Amino acid sequence: MITLPLRSRRPSTSDQDAARADEVRGALAAVLPADAFVTTPESVERYSHDEAEWAPYVPALAVVRPRTAEQVQAVVRVCLEHRVPVVPRGAGTGLSGGANAMAGSVVVSLEAMDAVLEVNPVERYAVVQPGVVNDDLRATVAAQGLWYPPDPASSPWATIGGNVATNAGGVCCVKYGVTRDYVLALQVVTGTGELVRVGRRTAKGVAGYDLTALMVGSEGTLGIVTEVTVRLRPARPPEQTVVGHFSSLVAAGEAVAAVTRSGVVPSALELLDRHCLRAVEDWQHLGLEADAAAILLARVDSPGAAGDAEAEAVRLAFELGGATWSARSEDPQQAEALFAARRLAYPALERLGPVLTEDVCVPLAAVPTMLARIEDVAARFDVHIANIAHAGDGNLHPLLMTPPGDEAARTRAQAAFEEIHATAIALGGTVTGEHGVGLLKRGGLVAESEPAVIAMHHAIRAALDPAGILNPGKVVAEPAAPDEDRPAE
Amino acid sequence: MITLPLRSRRPSTSDQDAARADEVRGALAAVLPADAFVTTPESVERYSHDEAEWAPYVPALAVVRPRTAEQVQAVVRVCLEHRVPVVPRGAGTGLSGGANAMAGSVVVSLEAMDAVLEVNPVERYAVVQPGVVNDDLRATVAAQGLWYPPDPASSPWATIGGNVATNAGGVCCVKYGVTRDYVLALQVVTGTGELVRVGRRTAKGVAGYDLTALMVGSEGTLGIVTEVTVRLRPARPPEQTVVGHFSSLVAAGEAVAAVTRSGVVPSALELLDRHCLRAVEDWQHLGLEADAAAILLARVDSPGAAGDAEAEAVRLAFELGGATWSARSEDPQQAEALFAARRLAYPALERLGPVLTEDVCVPLAAVPTMLARIEDVAARFDVHIANIAHAGDGNLHPLLMTPPGDEAARTRAQAAFEEIHATAIALGGTVTGEHGVGLLKRGGLVAESEPAVIAMHHAIRAALDPAGILNPGKVVAEPAAPDEDRPAE
Repeated sequence: MITLPLRSRRPSTSDQDAARADEVRGALAAVLPADAFVTTPESVERYSHDEAEWAPYVPALAVVRPRTAEQVQAVVRVCLEHRVPVVPRGAGTGLSGGANAMAGSVVVSLEAMDAVLEVNPVERYAVVQPGVVNDDLRATVAAQGLWYPPDPASSPWATIGGNVATNAGGVCCVKYGVTRDYVLALQVVTGTGELVRVGRRTAKGVAGYDLTALMVGSEGTLGIVTEVTVRLRPARPPEQTVVGHFSSLVAAGEAVAAVTRSGVVPSALELLDRHCLRAVEDWQHLGLEADAAAILLARVDSPGAAGDAEAEAVRLAFELGGATWSARSEDPQQAEALFAARRLAYPALERLGPVLTEDVCVPLAAVPTMLARIEDVAARFDVHIANIAHAGDGNLHPLLMTPPGDEAARTRAQAAFEEIHATAIALGGTVTGEHGVGLLKRGGLVAESEPAVIAMHHAIRAALDPAGILNPGKVVAEPAAPDEDRPAE
Repeated sequence: MITLPLRSRRPSTSDQDAARADEVRGALAAVLPADAFVTTPESVERYSHDEAEWAPYVPALAVVRPRTAEQVQAVVRVCLEHRVPVVPRGAGTGLSGGANAMAGSVVVSLEAMDAVLEVNPVERYAVVQPGVVNDDLRATVAAQGLWYPPDPASSPWATIGGNVATNAGGVCCVKYGVTRDYVLALQVVTGTGELVRVGRRTAKGVAGYDLTALMVGSEGTLGIVTEVTVRLRPARPPEQTVVGHFSSLVAAGEAVAAVTRSGVVPSALELLDRHCLRAVEDWQHLGLEADAAAILLARVDSPGAAGDAEAEAVRLAFELGGATWSARSEDPQQAEALFAARRLAYPALERLGPVLTEDVCVPLAAVPTMLARIEDVAARFDVHIANIAHAGDGNLHPLLMTPPGDEAARTRAQAAFEEIHATAIALGGTVTGEHGVGLLKRGGLVAESEPAVIAMHHAIRAALDPAGILNPGKVVAEPAAPDEDRPAE
């Protein structure tokens, strides 16, 4: 476990630390109601990390659950005054450690700010508090014939605020884009303790820099989001599902490339391997058969005959890629079960032991090669790797599984994790397609970026958070002060 | 005419200025070939401003046309060393003064960097130099069955680099978004003289801050773009056109609101008033009749029967809005002539005298009200105002016309311009939907933004351009140094 020193932190004895912690808690108590504090040690521990299995954390000095933007602002101002780190947090479903607490920090959970403030069907936007759960927003707007596309697998639990912080993706991104494409405006508490609005509610607007896009995906390091205005689409026609079975991961990868060459843009193109199917079936008993090495699940949503033509084109591409079986699904329940399996793959595998989740994204033409290299890494490093993927985006989630308590396996998995990063970068890809950098991908960000680009990150961060209090150590490691050691990577 | 002082500029005599200019020209000559310089005073004058009629400019100290990114970098380093402003420029079709030169500045025209470097039909992107003309890119990718959507009216002349600098919009944005939605990656020379790459070529990626989105629309104040990777779409089905005639601007606005309520997302929804139609017809003789006060031009592009249904729904919405006549166009040539009239409206009006172009964008529900207020402003300020609009986006372009040489009319038009800004902001809109802030909308940006947000702009700018050499005075006015006056607004 490592601690993440704050830029301005100075060495101090634990007595000094405890006194300082009491001081900060007292200052927070002066600006928040008593019921805004999470107090039991177990809860503080639970709120001090996300779902990134191997990312380090330290229990926070305090965990607070504000109910208004003004309370969030008051918390940030206390943290500014006392120069303590503030770590914003949604539902804690992140997979990169972006919401993990560091020593002496205050965790701000936005989950209690969970109101949908407005749904505007004419301008097609919704205004929500950050703690609104993704699926709840989707259901609320669906009741008015509208659609909020971003659909991460964690949508039953993940909050819009967390989705914004990580620029979350999902299944429909292959056709409809990611969270950033749907964020019109934000209310944010800045690193200087100001409560500001950025963005717009009009369809277009180019007045000034796109601070909204800059905030999205910045993982709480440039501001804490207290309100989100999302763009909506009209509800779309019903989707059709196409399923393909493949005798190898690489064959499934070839089929993905064939879909791309067909010119069809599917509304979903997902890959699951046998390990995932089996883990879900063992847990949920959905009636899935797992006799193929990998399956592809595609959906298309063009209306009428055009949709039929798209579905058939996808099925043909599956055959061209070497499918052992392919079909347009006639049974909506079976199609739904397959997509449920896709969503449940991660928690199903987590039941079996610690999972280290990759999130590499490569060019589409490189998908078969990347899948082959992942199999090679699994063999060379003697690590069990299951695979799910937003295959149509080239966004692969190899899941590195280790037996509980097996330290040697953990060490091998860590090495395999780094090797997969390096391979993705070498193929023209990125270490993170949708999960974010957090703590786990900081080295990867540095590996895939020019030093001058990393310097631009530091410059922007210092410009918007001059005191260095906003989720320090995340995305980019803090530059070491002359009298401090660098944080361990 | 005003001069725009550079942050670090100190008062100096004209002899000192001339010596300094010679010094800078000499330094540029040492890093660029001789044919990279624009030398005649007429050409220097022409390259020292864009098409914003009323924005101030001063002929540049030097105008250069580099052919490589490394030459651009060398120019920026010379400007850094000598602390002189550098003003990047595409085709100069901007309408806000964003490319206007200030005293003692170096203009860098990117027009000679006009190569399409790669078109990748599998990953669906193109890599282009900034001087590639928008229509040329569109034609090049169309030959491979691909489509680059952003289509500003200036597309026959405007460059992709300029489109990126201003985050240009166009006719198809109502369904397909603006330039920022299509920029995947950039190569940029930074304010510290580094040549860097930001962004990615994969479908998804969340490694680090979205510096690409931050650069797009920053009007050359955060970096000079030397290469652009744009996202492409597969070619789409043929469009259908629907035309509506209206007896008033406001009725046309009501029809726009009715289209929105219908749930159809048209691929174009444009408004032209009688003045624009007449000016184009007098110039180009396209055979347009201008007996309606305003016409709406819509296009839909869903495939097959779905497209037929959309076209009929739009026509019905036009009737609901009070159309005096509406029809689905059966004649592709006539439909093309109407859209050509839309594109040619601005140059057609420019022939008649100085035009001050508005670019306000309001919520869709406010379109009828905004159009009524514009008519009211025209009457109150005694200014002739013609109207074109990307009506489906709420992005209106009232064109304030003044007789050549009539100073009193100019003064009234300037007052009307400010009044229209204020009205748009009051209705929940913005002063610029797609043209950019440049010089003309700086006051508008301040009016529609919180002071803390303007401070964030300054902080980011100072972080990425610490010497203040990149297009100073644009987007946000430079904070006055203690010993300097503020630039005139």
